[in-house]
Amino acid sequence: MSNNLLKGKKGIVFGALNDQSIAWKTAECCYAEGAQLVLTNAPIALRMGEINKLAAACGNAPVIGADVVNNDDLKALFEQAMAHFGGPIDFVLHSVGMSLNIRKGKHYTDLNHDFQHKTLDISALSLHRVCQVAYSMDAMAEWGSIVALTYIAAQRVFPDYNEMADAKALLESISRSFGYHYGVKKKVRINTISQSPTRTTAGSGVKGFDGFISFAEKMSPLGNASADDCAQYCVSLFSDYTRMVTMQNLFHDGGFSFTGVTQEVIEQMEK
Amino acid sequence: MSNNLLKGKKGIVFGALNDQSIAWKTAECCYAEGAQLVLTNAPIALRMGEINKLAAACGNAPVIGADVVNNDDLKALFEQAMAHFGGPIDFVLHSVGMSLNIRKGKHYTDLNHDFQHKTLDISALSLHRVCQVAYSMDAMAEWGSIVALTYIAAQRVFPDYNEMADAKALLESISRSFGYHYGVKKKVRINTISQSPTRTTAGSGVKGFDGFISFAEKMSPLGNASADDCAQYCVSLFSDYTRMVTMQNLFHDGGFSFTGVTQEVIEQMEK
Amino acid sequence: MSNNLLKGKKGIVFGALNDQSIAWKTAECCYAEGAQLVLTNAPIALRMGEINKLAAACGNAPVIGADVVNNDDLKALFEQAMAHFGGPIDFVLHSVGMSLNIRKGKHYTDLNHDFQHKTLDISALSLHRVCQVAYSMDAMAEWGSIVALTYIAAQRVFPDYNEMADAKALLESISRSFGYHYGVKKKVRINTISQSPTRTTAGSGVKGFDGFISFAEKMSPLGNASADDCAQYCVSLFSDYTRMVTMQNLFHDGGFSFTGVTQEVIEQMEK
Amino acid sequence: MSNNLLKGKKGIVFGALNDQSIAWKTAECCYAEGAQLVLTNAPIALRMGEINKLAAACGNAPVIGADVVNNDDLKALFEQAMAHFGGPIDFVLHSVGMSLNIRKGKHYTDLNHDFQHKTLDISALSLHRVCQVAYSMDAMAEWGSIVALTYIAAQRVFPDYNEMADAKALLESISRSFGYHYGVKKKVRINTISQSPTRTTAGSGVKGFDGFISFAEKMSPLGNASADDCAQYCVSLFSDYTRMVTMQNLFHDGGFSFTGVTQEVIEQMEK
Repeated sequence: MSNNLLKGKKGIVFGALNDQSIAWKTAECCYAEGAQLVLTNAPIALRMGEINKLAAACGNAPVIGADVVNNDDLKALFEQAMAHFGGPIDFVLHSVGMSLNIRKGKHYTDLNHDFQHKTLDISALSLHRVCQVAYSMDAMAEWGSIVALTYIAAQRVFPDYNEMADAKALLESISRSFGYHYGVKKKVRINTISQSPTRTTAGSGVKGFDGFISFAEKMSPLGNASADDCAQYCVSLFSDYTRMVTMQNLFHDGGFSFTGVTQEVIEQMEK
Repeated sequence: MSNNLLKGKKGIVFGALNDQSIAWKTAECCYAEGAQLVLTNAPIALRMGEINKLAAACGNAPVIGADVVNNDDLKALFEQAMAHFGGPIDFVLHSVGMSLNIRKGKHYTDLNHDFQHKTLDISALSLHRVCQVAYSMDAMAEWGSIVALTYIAAQRVFPDYNEMADAKALLESISRSFGYHYGVKKKVRINTISQSPTRTTAGSGVKGFDGFISFAEKMSPLGNASADDCAQYCVSLFSDYTRMVTMQNLFHDGGFSFTGVTQEVIEQMEK
Repeated sequence: MSNNLLKGKKGIVFGALNDQSIAWKTAECCYAEGAQLVLTNAPIALRMGEINKLAAACGNAPVIGADVVNNDDLKALFEQAMAHFGGPIDFVLHSVGMSLNIRKGKHYTDLNHDFQHKTLDISALSLHRVCQVAYSMDAMAEWGSIVALTYIAAQRVFPDYNEMADAKALLESISRSFGYHYGVKKKVRINTISQSPTRTTAGSGVKGFDGFISFAEKMSPLGNASADDCAQYCVSLFSDYTRMVTMQNLFHDGGFSFTGVTQEVIEQMEK
Repeated sequence: MSNNLLKGKKGIVFGALNDQSIAWKTAECCYAEGAQLVLTNAPIALRMGEINKLAAACGNAPVIGADVVNNDDLKALFEQAMAHFGGPIDFVLHSVGMSLNIRKGKHYTDLNHDFQHKTLDISALSLHRVCQVAYSMDAMAEWGSIVALTYIAAQRVFPDYNEMADAKALLESISRSFGYHYGVKKKVRINTISQSPTRTTAGSGVKGFDGFISFAEKMSPLGNASADDCAQYCVSLFSDYTRMVTMQNLFHDGGFSFTGVTQEVIEQMEK
């Protein structure tokens, strides 16, 4: 599908790891819709090299390494992106998250609090850093659009999602808070997409992910939204069709968020 | 703006009264995006005749009168629309609302309860009727999209909005409830757009509307969303870019819904 | 448990049918906490006679029949209650609901719209009627408390709950709307309690209730709240410990409302 | 007011600084309702000495210094409290918060990210630490109750509240997440109270606090809830009347949270 929805727009995509990533699919869709791109990820992720395939598929988009918890890296990223584009940025996708406590197998009731800070920094404060750096450099074009990916665990407890739930709640709050200020200053809008559980490399790290993704599938009238679906939805939020939507957390989940129970789940419960 | 986003899609638009109406603007945008349309309104509204201008501007779209609280009228409407299109409906805009108690100047604490039933019927149950008729006739195409317009008074009290607040809360619940069933059955999605206060003929009927619209403007980081903005947003929700969004109430309000106060309002309070 | 929390307070309890009813338990608790009571129900429900046992257990509380959709009946009720108490009312419990479409076995996608009006009238507009009658008669004491019982289907779809979901959404909106006006006028507060599914005569009418109540039990960290628990919670909301809580929908459900999934449900899904 | 609501219960109160503090008032109310107390605050706050007055007024409650971001301090606190009480803890009040960026006059769009970590640690992660320490020591009695104080800026932007908004969003998420686990394990419930802006020493640190508190007053049908009101509400949540309420964010604000606008504000806007 392509309708030139992003013709002439310039964007930065954070977090494309491999072709399972939502960020990867989003970059492809944005390019197909006429956008020019800069791709970025942590230096360590870049070393795996797959992103170069994506760059090639996106009109030889520059790949610029940046540590999202390092403001200087982010400043250099925006500078190089603006130099490449010859102007300001129209859209940003923030698809970044990592939980050290989950990696280390720590239960939510037994967290390492230093790890927790690291998790919050990478997964949530990174959005504040990106916005603050862009704001201070006046790097976003008027009516620009910033989207961050989140998950409904920010609202309701999914025990295996562990400390990432708190990180996502923080991320969503930051998107509202910064959305206010960037909206007032320059009409830049900031929203989060609360996506169905998705079988990405990141998602798969969550314990019990399979049982969980199948529960979500059964609890969603339209089924789970895929990474491809999410990419299309991102395009709509970067486009000019949604210019007055800001500071929102938008559920993109086939109806999961407002479904209390389905017939299918009730039947399973009766087994 | 046009990107052929709705190329090949067929839709029914309820509630275009005059060129101030959100429904009117939405019909124009949908047509510009490649959709074919059927227009409908209450017989009494059609008699004013303005809608014929809209029909002409939309490729001579048929205008079919229907009373939204009459299931037979709705059945005839869908039959004629399908006959005209030669197939099922892809999208529906429900932009219908009327408060008899407001018209009669009744305060919320002194409602006429017969009027209240009428208000609920026209403004909220009408959505159930439209969906039920379409469902029973299998009139919607798979992945079809139904959008109804609502207002944030469904969540928070705006005293002058009076009984319409309750009607909108009911409307939003119906969109969730029917969204579940239509999603399960045929992947049809149903959402509401919670729009900024808009200077339409309907909006203007609300007492103290001017003070109120200016408060909303001052409380929205991006300012109030206009009827034109809303039309564009409707297009995105009718398009294939948003197929996994259902059962949601989507705020389209320049950030009003998640702004607690703005600097501008604080300054006004200090006067 | 009794701490004289409601000493000197006078209340009206709607909807005590038999000793399974939440209203019945609430009346008992309020009496145990020192309150004086008037009991009311529909004339047809009174004819079953059980309520006289409750009246006897509550210090020979008067039982006054009233049809909640008849404003004259409600006026007479408040007049007689005030005459009995020798003064205004401190608290009201609204525990009223009935769905004709459920009784008749109509699916949500095949409702009889006349029945739907009846359902909304009895289950939701009745709260507006009660408040409006009390307001017009100035029947509530300053800082009085009105509580209505609701269910989380107002926020999320539970398919078997059918049209009652919409009725509850309307009820909650009315409690906010009237809560605003009664708060401004006389510091009267109005809240809803969103209670766990409860095995009452009313609850049992819902199809698939057993599978459903067991799903809720498994999805609630503390288990389902019982009718007795709810009665205690009502007492706290009628007491002076909660005077600044108004216009809220308060979940009383062992944590169900903010639990996305539990380990127990995941395990059941894997079977 | 006293009804012996907390007779026999033992609690720890964090954060009583002086007689303006909500924690101070809550300690007084809990004591009046029959509870035994341990008081705690940061060592630096204790040095100011006022808390000894409170201790004296609460039956010579022990005062134990603890840094809320130091797990060892918290462990020692719980050990000493249990030794003093001769058994487990029934309730905890968490009234702790501090923003370094606000103190240093940093705007939200120009935060120092090291300060931000400190703010989050003291104001939000401290709740996780308290819960985790108690959980690991099995220090809470079955059906115990933990309450943390928060503010509606977690949901909607109040620009001067700055980074504390994000801290409160994180705090609320932690209360849900831990509420799940502690509920499943030991029926311990965890809730947050979202309180009106209150003229405490902490509150007064927020820029533009006066204009802001008067806006809130005008926007609340019952007016702002005072620190005394909040103390009473805490008592209800520590009592056995609210045992099935958990994982909730409870607005205690005179109706502010569900009021979109008031007549009084509209009139002010027209000046």
